[in-house]
Amino acid sequence: MKEIIDSLNWRYATKSFNGDKKLTDNQLDGLLSAIQLAPSSFGLQPYKVIVVEDQKVKEQLKAAAYGQAQLTDASHIFVFAIEKNFSEKHVDSFIANIAETRGVAVADLKGFSDVMKGTVNSRSAEELDVWNSRQAYIGLGVLLETAALNRIDACPMEGFDNAKFDEILGLQIENLHAVAIAAVGFRAADDVYQHYTKVRKAKDNLFIHI
Amino acid sequence: MKEIIDSLNWRYATKSFNGDKKLTDNQLDGLLSAIQLAPSSFGLQPYKVIVVEDQKVKEQLKAAAYGQAQLTDASHIFVFAIEKNFSEKHVDSFIANIAETRGVAVADLKGFSDVMKGTVNSRSAEELDVWNSRQAYIGLGVLLETAALNRIDACPMEGFDNAKFDEILGLQIENLHAVAIAAVGFRAADDVYQHYTKVRKAKDNLFIHI
Repeated sequence: MKEIIDSLNWRYATKSFNGDKKLTDNQLDGLLSAIQLAPSSFGLQPYKVIVVEDQKVKEQLKAAAYGQAQLTDASHIFVFAIEKNFSEKHVDSFIANIAETRGVAVADLKGFSDVMKGTVNSRSAEELDVWNSRQAYIGLGVLLETAALNRIDACPMEGFDNAKFDEILGLQIENLHAVAIAAVGFRAADDVYQHYTKVRKAKDNLFIHI
Repeated sequence: MKEIIDSLNWRYATKSFNGDKKLTDNQLDGLLSAIQLAPSSFGLQPYKVIVVEDQKVKEQLKAAAYGQAQLTDASHIFVFAIEKNFSEKHVDSFIANIAETRGVAVADLKGFSDVMKGTVNSRSAEELDVWNSRQAYIGLGVLLETAALNRIDACPMEGFDNAKFDEILGLQIENLHAVAIAAVGFRAADDVYQHYTKVRKAKDNLFIHI
């Protein structure tokens, strides 16, 4: 446990990245595996993650994120994008995946499928977007912790033009919508923010014990 | 990295907990520290976590969660509750905390304070709730990963009556609203779900590389 707490204390929202230091293939694959394994409601994983390494695209994203340097200096930009128009079709894909993975008949999963479809159909398009975004944020949390545990830096960001990101990355065509990003890489030696004392609510102000 | 991936593969949404096995004080404190250190937008931590150990209260929560056994059999129930009516007041508290933690004058933080207040004031009450919920889900993700890394089981849950949870836990008075819960403890030896193969989107269906 101590190692985890130390890692979470080590991390900070990196403002200045070392533009020359890139994630290794193993590091990148490990981060992707962690996101892949992140929990989500019912296991539906109602989002995709766009992993941007192309420097020209990163320049475009930077322009759509108020010029923040992390977009171009970080090794990779992870864009969490929710599935829009979430519907029974997505549930069917998930059920097909369960059937294949576990070697069971789709028909035997009808009960579970019906529960999920009931939930999906009971929600408005806006409520589904909210729900899906929350699941994406679990994935974001898992990415940030996994990065820290491996001494990989990251900066989670919400300050960007979502519509422009969708446009640059061609997300509308895929029925996706960007909700959060993380710049991932390695801190610059001279990023002063790494030396700032972390500010957090005291435990007795964050937790209520019953 | 391998240890993390193994841990995330080890975890599953535990359906049946061993009612006799409780978190140690050290385990509980470690999980709380991880949540405390979880990132959030601007660092605002716009939520609290109610940690329920009292068996009678857990019984009440179970009744408000469709009788799901996790609520009473797990060692502790973590209830993530967002701050409602989020406002400049919350920003001021955060600024005061920064000033005290880092030994700087509140006046010197005016620029940062103004940026946050501008963001808060530009959003509707509903948008603020959505925003705050997303931050709570980062905390939930960090809790679930930290638990798994320590071989502590958990079951994240959204299937509960939020309003009844608010009532049972007295959250309205505190301007809090329950958005997600995690039952935390140790799996029962006979929980069949632990043996099911994990189902996840294939990487080429979850990630888009650019």
